[in-house]
Amino acid sequence: MSGIEGIDVLVSEVGPRDGLQSIKSIMPTEAKKAWIAAEAAAGVREIEVCSFVPAKLLPQMADAAEVVRYACTIPGLTVLALVPNFKGAENAIAAGAHKIALPLSASETHSRANLRKSHAEVLDDVRKIAELVRSLPADRRPGFEGNVSTAFGCTLEGPVAEDKVVELAAALMAAGCDEVGLSDTTGYANPAQLKRLIRLVRQEIGHDRLSGVHLHNTRGLGLANALAALEEGVTTLDSSLGGLGGCPYAPGASGNIVTEDLVFMLDAMGLKTGIDLDRLLAVREILKAALPAEEMYGFTPDAGLPKGYGAGGWGVGRAAA
Amino acid sequence: MSGIEGIDVLVSEVGPRDGLQSIKSIMPTEAKKAWIAAEAAAGVREIEVCSFVPAKLLPQMADAAEVVRYACTIPGLTVLALVPNFKGAENAIAAGAHKIALPLSASETHSRANLRKSHAEVLDDVRKIAELVRSLPADRRPGFEGNVSTAFGCTLEGPVAEDKVVELAAALMAAGCDEVGLSDTTGYANPAQLKRLIRLVRQEIGHDRLSGVHLHNTRGLGLANALAALEEGVTTLDSSLGGLGGCPYAPGASGNIVTEDLVFMLDAMGLKTGIDLDRLLAVREILKAALPAEEMYGFTPDAGLPKGYGAGGWGVGRAAA
Repeated sequence: MSGIEGIDVLVSEVGPRDGLQSIKSIMPTEAKKAWIAAEAAAGVREIEVCSFVPAKLLPQMADAAEVVRYACTIPGLTVLALVPNFKGAENAIAAGAHKIALPLSASETHSRANLRKSHAEVLDDVRKIAELVRSLPADRRPGFEGNVSTAFGCTLEGPVAEDKVVELAAALMAAGCDEVGLSDTTGYANPAQLKRLIRLVRQEIGHDRLSGVHLHNTRGLGLANALAALEEGVTTLDSSLGGLGGCPYAPGASGNIVTEDLVFMLDAMGLKTGIDLDRLLAVREILKAALPAEEMYGFTPDAGLPKGYGAGGWGVGRAAA
Repeated sequence: MSGIEGIDVLVSEVGPRDGLQSIKSIMPTEAKKAWIAAEAAAGVREIEVCSFVPAKLLPQMADAAEVVRYACTIPGLTVLALVPNFKGAENAIAAGAHKIALPLSASETHSRANLRKSHAEVLDDVRKIAELVRSLPADRRPGFEGNVSTAFGCTLEGPVAEDKVVELAAALMAAGCDEVGLSDTTGYANPAQLKRLIRLVRQEIGHDRLSGVHLHNTRGLGLANALAALEEGVTTLDSSLGGLGGCPYAPGASGNIVTEDLVFMLDAMGLKTGIDLDRLLAVREILKAALPAEEMYGFTPDAGLPKGYGAGGWGVGRAAA
């Protein structure tokens, strides 16, 4: 379909960062390590393991450096860390993160609420971080991704101008990011809007500079939006195990798309994720045990895999049984 | 996107049939009437209001004839009734249904469980019903739709051969149906499989003979599948208010796609449904009051509409604010 048969899709797990920063419970460091290890063992190749924010703001992330150092010992895993500012980038790099990601909210109101900074102030940080990154020896130089958050609308400002998103994506590249992602922080995106904005941003910054999309399932459109992104040739999709997560500064915007349901969709379609679905589903037990008070989402875990799944009959290029 | 900008989509509400037949509670006739009237008033143009099955099998449908007669008094509403056999068709026609739909399960095991009939026996009924329909004067002749159910897999048999689905769609047309729909009774479908099967069936029976698709959200892929169908040019989508419904003979296969989330997606994309989203969301109160014991699904009702929604900034062809 739409020329995406059999493509390789990178599912980037963001639960340990986006999920854990958005809930009251604080997951013990050992549980975070077990979660990260288990998902990597299930075949997940990239995990955003933490955010380097002051512990007084997000106590859930107080062990960020330790979690990064541990995750970096897992062979083949790309370890991503969110950095809200220069200090966070210094700490993430010191801990050895393979990639750092900085959010720039298309909504300046949300930017001030989230990072306490204007667009200009965030872009100043991006330039300083890019200098620091470039100053490092190649073997210690992390990838540097900028993310335009609230790119599809803001719970504080409402609609966000697409021109503004394109402008900020270009500004992030000009300030020194390697690539730029688009985040539906608030769960406002729809498939038509997503396809349109992906095209507009690529026209501006170059097709291969769009790193991926970060989607939420706030209004149930998460997987439809993921499909739309795939059809536009986007092959990196963020998701969160159990659908944990959201944005603490965007009320109501809870719930990343669910990794389990996303991987089921991709796998059933015959796309390649490298993830073992049964092993992935088993990782939920770690979350349930460590976060007994938190609600977990996802339909596939409750319904189970279809009868005879994997025996053929599903997905592109698979012969019907 | 994909040439579907601004198209008119018919959302066919199936909750009063598929929803109510699948739950233990029996909705009072007056509540059914209030529900149907309220959704029609919100702009829903087609509603599958009941199934003409013996009350001893489905007491939830004991008032089928009365519900059809009432629904037919609502101006502009297309009143659909499910008929499992010839007797049911006679009763539906006597009550004045505008359209009758008969399910033929691609899985013969499911067919025997659901209708106690083999494929051949069901097709015999279809021929008899088609004769009856043709014998009626034009002003009293209902549309006659065949539905290939468990078309994407069966909870009893597992994978279903696509050739079998195509063969049965052709058999339904040959037996006298006006059009044929495809039903993911079990919530097994994925977007690639759905697109492929839509193409295969249309190649066999003719592009304009595929009446629509009936999707479930069992594994969370419901709206992604709906998007895939739209991109194939399918413009009639079944859904159920509050996601009520499923198949009592297919364990675990609960939950039609949620009308509220589907209409939000279509509306946000700039597609035309004729449905007032706020009025549609308000109809949930009728279900909550009449079915206090039943779980209702849907993300949009909990999250609410995006801030500034409708003021522009969303959807194809809408200028960003």
